[in-house]
Amino acid sequence: MMKRLIVDMDGVLADACAHFAAYDERETGRRKTPAEFTGKPEFTAFPGARQYAGSAGFFRTAPLIADSQKVLEQLNQRYELYIVSSATEFPLSLAEKVAWLAEHFPFISWRRIVLCGSKQIVRGDVMIDDHFGNLDFFEGRTLLFTQPHNLHAPDGRHERVHTWNDVARLLL
Amino acid sequence: MMKRLIVDMDGVLADACAHFAAYDERETGRRKTPAEFTGKPEFTAFPGARQYAGSAGFFRTAPLIADSQKVLEQLNQRYELYIVSSATEFPLSLAEKVAWLAEHFPFISWRRIVLCGSKQIVRGDVMIDDHFGNLDFFEGRTLLFTQPHNLHAPDGRHERVHTWNDVARLLL
Repeated sequence: MMKRLIVDMDGVLADACAHFAAYDERETGRRKTPAEFTGKPEFTAFPGARQYAGSAGFFRTAPLIADSQKVLEQLNQRYELYIVSSATEFPLSLAEKVAWLAEHFPFISWRRIVLCGSKQIVRGDVMIDDHFGNLDFFEGRTLLFTQPHNLHAPDGRHERVHTWNDVARLLL
Repeated sequence: MMKRLIVDMDGVLADACAHFAAYDERETGRRKTPAEFTGKPEFTAFPGARQYAGSAGFFRTAPLIADSQKVLEQLNQRYELYIVSSATEFPLSLAEKVAWLAEHFPFISWRRIVLCGSKQIVRGDVMIDDHFGNLDFFEGRTLLFTQPHNLHAPDGRHERVHTWNDVARLLL
């Protein structure tokens, strides 16, 4: 039986940090340097982040994280792949996330998409996420995807991956 | 620790069958009798059902199932309550379901809403659902909520409840 792999969207497939930085630059007229946001929660580093995330179009236009399409398509052959994304806080994001996945990851069926508030409810064998708040409650193997907000945090019991090629090396 | 209770929306909180019947009547000019749809999958009994479910406003205007608000509010005090609804097939339904819950069940936080394709991924202690396809895969206690489509089916390993007062008697 295939193992069930649970993959997060923001910070793992979608480059939410770069997108927040771009929205922040548009608002402030200045691009924040990595030193200004590294090690901080995104909603702290970018004061308008919650408003950006709640606005129409934000999630639909998020940029991709490098190599995510190529590696996820291969993983989809070897695992029972589910995309599990925190989304119900921002109702406009819901349909946008489904449309974004359909555009960039057309091999993922709507049957394999979960939009939630808390990920404590999901079960599976492997989880890839950039937030400890999701990984810490998961019973299976946990891969911490490096993002500026978690860069300086101790890995804890999780295996850290910096890129999708790191994920490929561990899971393919 | 509180037990985790997973509650379905359509056919359990929202009277999807009555709503399909009303849409069908609007289209055909005649209200189907219960004998015409009882024992049949809704997407068979109401030929336009998939189109209705995909249209704007369908889920936002669904009628409530009797006593669901009163009993669910009490259950929310005693259980870690999650609403888990199949929804990703119909992207317009996503934000509508969140808004519908906020209107009729304001005590349910966005943190406790899960919109998915398959419910095989969720774990918990008790599930209330009207579909065998969801209950059969659940590891915990399972309550089959009576709906016309499941009325003649054998209960299998599930406990059948006909009303929210039945649920209250079993779980409160």
